[in-house]
Amino acid sequence: MSIKSVKAILFDTFGTVSDWRGSIDREISKIAAAKGVENFDGDAFARAWRAGYRPGMARVTSGEREWVAVDVIHRERLDEILPEFGLDMLTEEERADLNLAWHRIRPWPDSVPGLIRLKSKYLISPLSNGSLVLLATMGKQAGIPWDFVFSSDMHKAYKRNPAVYRNAIALLGFEPGEVMMGAAHNDDLEAARKEGMRTAYINRPYEYGVDQVKDFEATSDWDIIADDMGGIADAMGV
Amino acid sequence: MSIKSVKAILFDTFGTVSDWRGSIDREISKIAAAKGVENFDGDAFARAWRAGYRPGMARVTSGEREWVAVDVIHRERLDEILPEFGLDMLTEEERADLNLAWHRIRPWPDSVPGLIRLKSKYLISPLSNGSLVLLATMGKQAGIPWDFVFSSDMHKAYKRNPAVYRNAIALLGFEPGEVMMGAAHNDDLEAARKEGMRTAYINRPYEYGVDQVKDFEATSDWDIIADDMGGIADAMGV
Repeated sequence: MSIKSVKAILFDTFGTVSDWRGSIDREISKIAAAKGVENFDGDAFARAWRAGYRPGMARVTSGEREWVAVDVIHRERLDEILPEFGLDMLTEEERADLNLAWHRIRPWPDSVPGLIRLKSKYLISPLSNGSLVLLATMGKQAGIPWDFVFSSDMHKAYKRNPAVYRNAIALLGFEPGEVMMGAAHNDDLEAARKEGMRTAYINRPYEYGVDQVKDFEATSDWDIIADDMGGIADAMGV
Repeated sequence: MSIKSVKAILFDTFGTVSDWRGSIDREISKIAAAKGVENFDGDAFARAWRAGYRPGMARVTSGEREWVAVDVIHRERLDEILPEFGLDMLTEEERADLNLAWHRIRPWPDSVPGLIRLKSKYLISPLSNGSLVLLATMGKQAGIPWDFVFSSDMHKAYKRNPAVYRNAIALLGFEPGEVMMGAAHNDDLEAARKEGMRTAYINRPYEYGVDQVKDFEATSDWDIIADDMGGIADAMGV
């Protein structure tokens, strides 16, 4: 099967479609300024918050912990790092709202125009570790016209667990080769390819800023290798 | 909890958002004309096709049959009625395409404008017995801007099985009273209310045409009772 058979394209969101680092930096920097925290580094805060994400999911994947939504993992990590950044004075209400910053993260500038082009011919959806309301709210606020949403809650598993890709393919009722995964992370595409999916790599070398240690380039011969969402649309002929 | 607490509104689709009878009539009448079938009654065909829907789901709900997607139920009923309507000459390919007529059914004229208003403040989604690709395709072709899609495949159950409503509420992570069900069918709202959901009735007295035997009016004091989608938007203050 070639990419000509593709009917649906599923996207990783954090980092691939959306710029979590810049978005969290902007939100937290406003709060820190309002609270009078001096020499605050919003970019470091965003990276520190994100650093709790994979370990938090790994505890679920390993079976050490029962299923929890990513919002819970975000919140636990938030409570952990607030004191380190001089923000321990935040109230419960302020913390709850700040945790929703992940529902409001903004897309990279090329994402929405490219996705609108892709939507004209393909079904488009996130295949993300986000929760349903997180992904739906993010899409709505950013103007991303998803045809539907696959959230981790629906699979009760996090990528790169094969169950996520298999469940998505089964829900679509398509052949694996009729479904494409789009991601800025080589290991996400590796997991998708193992299930028979088509793969599209999109280069996001600034996702993690100074913390980025990999995914500066495609490390395999993915079906598509592009520098932005428009490049995927070009390759898919829309 | 009043309707002021509502965050998401979930809609029945067949009959409530979309006019399946008129849509199927138009598609099948074109085919019958092309095949030279005389005195063909497209409206009767649509009603006959639809008449296999509830019995087909009931076999799944009763446990007599394992889970099958509604597309399978549609196809089995189609094969059953084609001879009765003089269309037994349709090839496998023609039947497969005709079965997708349910993916292409059109909304009632008031549906999309009303849903766009509701989307401005609430998360909107189908809560339908349709399959994922059916609902996503229908929404896409009709320009319905769903924030996400709940399909029966995700619940492996059909309404009015309580599991459908409970699973949707759980996936949202909201309180039951923060979720509203919108439907043209009193028994759908009854099932939603039993789970603690808010309810909006929308009157569709022409859904079944001459076969309509109920749902000519609200039979209970639903939170909202409206004559069209705009009426629900009015009541929800958008």
